[in-house]
Amino acid sequence: MKKKSKYNIAVVGAKGAVGHEMIRILEERNFPVAEFHPFGSSRTKNQPVRFQGKDYPNRELKFESGVFDGIDIVLSSPGASVSKKFVPYAIESDAIVIDNTSAFRMHPKVPLVIPEVNPQDIRKHAGIIANPNCSAIIMLMAIAPLHRKNPIKRVLCATYQAVSGAGATGMIELYKQSEEFVERVQNNPDYSKDLLSAIRNEIEQVQSDKKPLAKQVFPHQIAFNLFSHNSDIEESGYNGEELKMIAESRKILHDDKIRIATTCIRVPILRAHSEVLYLEFEKRMSPEKAADILKKSPGIEIVDFAEKNYFPMPIKASGSDNVLVGRIREDLSLRNGLALFVAGDQLRKGAALNAVQIAEALIS
Amino acid sequence: MKKKSKYNIAVVGAKGAVGHEMIRILEERNFPVAEFHPFGSSRTKNQPVRFQGKDYPNRELKFESGVFDGIDIVLSSPGASVSKKFVPYAIESDAIVIDNTSAFRMHPKVPLVIPEVNPQDIRKHAGIIANPNCSAIIMLMAIAPLHRKNPIKRVLCATYQAVSGAGATGMIELYKQSEEFVERVQNNPDYSKDLLSAIRNEIEQVQSDKKPLAKQVFPHQIAFNLFSHNSDIEESGYNGEELKMIAESRKILHDDKIRIATTCIRVPILRAHSEVLYLEFEKRMSPEKAADILKKSPGIEIVDFAEKNYFPMPIKASGSDNVLVGRIREDLSLRNGLALFVAGDQLRKGAALNAVQIAEALIS
Repeated sequence: MKKKSKYNIAVVGAKGAVGHEMIRILEERNFPVAEFHPFGSSRTKNQPVRFQGKDYPNRELKFESGVFDGIDIVLSSPGASVSKKFVPYAIESDAIVIDNTSAFRMHPKVPLVIPEVNPQDIRKHAGIIANPNCSAIIMLMAIAPLHRKNPIKRVLCATYQAVSGAGATGMIELYKQSEEFVERVQNNPDYSKDLLSAIRNEIEQVQSDKKPLAKQVFPHQIAFNLFSHNSDIEESGYNGEELKMIAESRKILHDDKIRIATTCIRVPILRAHSEVLYLEFEKRMSPEKAADILKKSPGIEIVDFAEKNYFPMPIKASGSDNVLVGRIREDLSLRNGLALFVAGDQLRKGAALNAVQIAEALIS
Repeated sequence: MKKKSKYNIAVVGAKGAVGHEMIRILEERNFPVAEFHPFGSSRTKNQPVRFQGKDYPNRELKFESGVFDGIDIVLSSPGASVSKKFVPYAIESDAIVIDNTSAFRMHPKVPLVIPEVNPQDIRKHAGIIANPNCSAIIMLMAIAPLHRKNPIKRVLCATYQAVSGAGATGMIELYKQSEEFVERVQNNPDYSKDLLSAIRNEIEQVQSDKKPLAKQVFPHQIAFNLFSHNSDIEESGYNGEELKMIAESRKILHDDKIRIATTCIRVPILRAHSEVLYLEFEKRMSPEKAADILKKSPGIEIVDFAEKNYFPMPIKASGSDNVLVGRIREDLSLRNGLALFVAGDQLRKGAALNAVQIAEALIS
């Protein structure tokens, strides 16, 4: 794109969980912003959006020509259906869209980019660059540097996904259910004299469906519970999130042969996804060698302290730009295998940070 | 053992999380109990232990001859070090010990039994029968019936383990940390006008270690967090829990060749463990065939409703005698592979119920 000293930036979905992070990250990284234009739905119209100490009224996104005239870069994180509708108008206005939704990710003409993994793909864009699925980004940050040195033939993954993957409302749902449960335990007659009995009684009430915790966002209780990711199950028996991880990983790695199976599970964590990974390499790779490669990889922090039993955790990954990698060890069931445990902030590296990094690459 | 109409039963660790369940299950299943003798540490001495509507004073367990005279069966779930000390005296008194600790599990002369999997091993006992590790039981309940029909060559597992695996104090720690977090959010000045901001601020305080949540039981915060199981890491890079799952599975299946790797993670769930399982079979097995085999297996409940996105969950497994199995599908990365998601109550089938089932087999 044309070199300027500062750029006009729009953020679509500015009041959402990812939009909020995009704006924080533009500030933190001193992105050269000339004009700032937050957009949202009619529901969030005129709500104040704070950027660099100033409040901007959120603009309602209209699907029509001219809305993005004068905008250089659109950072976008609404729903996929919204992206499909507005992106043609943004392109018409010569704005470049970095889209965090799944709308265009698998389109053959749209680059799908993790700047640390496939930066070369950014150049091929025709107005849209797609930001990958959060769980895919966190997984690939850990495995792409290893794959480059010693091809990975097969990946098995189990995720531990935070509620904020479902947006800000997911975080509120987990909090409110936890609050309701705590208040019920506090009101239980056993609370002062036998806390354990009070907890047991209240969890029984919840599990028997006699007194379920209120829910609005997720199909199942999330506080003190976990469930298979609630995206639709396709004919293969895999859900949408799992299939995204598989298809997007192949596209980003430019490797159609890598075999991947994933199981995506939502857990009662506010922020940051974790993943168990089992990797099968073409040739043997020692845990020491893998740690050495990852240590030198940008965006990775090794957290692997066996003596202190200190490994990646969501509360440490939350707010961090790095994907934390630990439990690097042999797969005891396979000669050419390694096992890892990773955690990354899916709102930052898994979404907003990755998008801003793409914008930085665009203007550099 | 000698056939009687009723048996004198001791429960060692009667005030613990597993002991509590053992007593409930003896009641529920109308185990023929003549005398009931609860035992515990000096700390819980004389605390009332309720059984069949009557309170019994908890007896302090002394490591000396005669304590178990007249007892037929000891259901034991203290720490492993306690079991090592008292079991010789129980055997001296001709009591049969069903021990839930890891003390004797891998001893070549001690049967390690899941009644649905290897009931024939019970007969070989010489005074002690070991109850397997909870995560191993839940995994083997799901895979043993398949393994019998079509040998499984390799198992990869990732666990989602509830805090009650660490006993009653683990449940209290998760509750108290949740309560503390809720109270902090409620006291945050943004609570009434911007709940999301209050949650974000308080989670930042916690993650930055500025204001960590109080902890006593686990080495890391467990509320709204998860961490690699806190058993010691051995030289292989695997922790004690993971190595137990591997070694015990081989012993129970009488299969030294089955290759297993596991990653054990503690999650903020009060009760019931979940597991992602990837299985490699000798020959291809369809998901339908696997579901069919499991449907006919005792102690298994298939929970696999793709249209409703309804699969095994800890709140549904809690209090259930069955291990719930769902997400039965092909492993997309392997022709002879299947993937499953399971959940089971680790205090019941993973511990107390399994022990009482062994006792039932002993007297039948």
